[in-house]
Amino acid sequence: MPRGPDELKALAEEELDRLELWPELHGQAESARYGLVEMGGKRVRPVIALAVGEALGAAVEQVMPAALAIELVHNFSLVHDDLPALDDDEERRGKPSVWAAYGEGTAVLAGDALLAEAFRLACRYPSADVARELAQATLGMIGGQYLDVTGTASDEQTLHRLKTGCLFAASVGLALWAAGVPEGEQGSWRAFGDELGLLFQIVDDILDGDGYVLAHGADGARRLADEAADRARARLAEVDADTSVLREIVDGLAVRTA
Amino acid sequence: MPRGPDELKALAEEELDRLELWPELHGQAESARYGLVEMGGKRVRPVIALAVGEALGAAVEQVMPAALAIELVHNFSLVHDDLPALDDDEERRGKPSVWAAYGEGTAVLAGDALLAEAFRLACRYPSADVARELAQATLGMIGGQYLDVTGTASDEQTLHRLKTGCLFAASVGLALWAAGVPEGEQGSWRAFGDELGLLFQIVDDILDGDGYVLAHGADGARRLADEAADRARARLAEVDADTSVLREIVDGLAVRTA
Repeated sequence: MPRGPDELKALAEEELDRLELWPELHGQAESARYGLVEMGGKRVRPVIALAVGEALGAAVEQVMPAALAIELVHNFSLVHDDLPALDDDEERRGKPSVWAAYGEGTAVLAGDALLAEAFRLACRYPSADVARELAQATLGMIGGQYLDVTGTASDEQTLHRLKTGCLFAASVGLALWAAGVPEGEQGSWRAFGDELGLLFQIVDDILDGDGYVLAHGADGARRLADEAADRARARLAEVDADTSVLREIVDGLAVRTA
Repeated sequence: MPRGPDELKALAEEELDRLELWPELHGQAESARYGLVEMGGKRVRPVIALAVGEALGAAVEQVMPAALAIELVHNFSLVHDDLPALDDDEERRGKPSVWAAYGEGTAVLAGDALLAEAFRLACRYPSADVARELAQATLGMIGGQYLDVTGTASDEQTLHRLKTGCLFAASVGLALWAAGVPEGEQGSWRAFGDELGLLFQIVDDILDGDGYVLAHGADGARRLADEAADRARARLAEVDADTSVLREIVDGLAVRTA
């Protein structure tokens, strides 16, 4: 039986807890760890990556570095997003954001350190495939942040595809590389990752009452979310693997309330 | 005849000029390119990497992505260092720094984009060796920046080894991986890279009248620089390669006036 989402989340948390940051970070490690571990998080992205690995029959240790690398990129983006010069958020998840706790300069460096540590994790593999896709996803996400803070996105869909979709797609994509799935056999999996990112974003907007809700109304957004979930399930049905846990994750993302 | 430093610098500048940033950066690419190309620079690090490649008989195209990746990491660090929350520099090389030209939020993202692009370049190789060493060097450099801005370095040597030495050592190290030198044959080369970083830093302090000059006096610092240059030349003499251009680079770094 493959491990369920809660068990995978616990495994990811455990590994994050004992992740050894590069010793030459010296005192800078403290604020980086605060932004990564102490502020917590849903850990959705590493859970997806680990679940893809489980479905493919890969050992959890084989996929873990890739799964953690994505979470570190996600956290890097939060640390920089919260800065006064960007979203100016003093709190996140009920705790002081990194800049509020450690000062702006240290927070800039903390985000930088998390991004570089993400690549160190992604480079635990002999091949550069994992790190290469992580770099591309990170750049798409940064492009999305730029469109967001400058209000220059041509449309909402592009903005969300970049800001949220890139890292969700990478959660699936990195796990495929880590598990050794050849590029030619990744098609349905990657289409699944795209639908998952879209689903996450639409439900986010439903919970926040913005984005897709403003454009399509509450019922319209709900319908779009359900359609994305259906397409995600259909893509899962195409792959030759035990995707029961991933189906459970799709169901959970579709009805989540936080 | 191997290419000289000026020719290698021109080649690196040409490649930086035509470097295609990731299309999904959208408008964010402009400020990243400004920080990388328009602000100029000595391009010391890529020149060293390319010269190591030349000495080893590797094709210049083979080492170029690694050489550019180091320059992008260097420029990422300058863009973030200049921010008001860190060194608060409005100008660099007589031009507005990135935040002064584009605003703080965009400058944070520009640095982020340069770092992620650096890893995309380092991942042009099939193996993760180049990107892995780049990640480690970047983390050491960030650790050094932290010690610098917080004034918490235990000693000046540690600070400089991290802030300057890590990327200089990586300029040699990445070129070794890119040129396919096995780990067991990298010893003398790596020792050379360490001396080169030290030499660069001491001469920097001589030019600025701080650091090593304050600790050892002008004559003392000059002597330490000359000793580092001698040790660098001795290390070069140990390797079985045409290191004439690298010797020229050592000589140039020892007597540089800017």
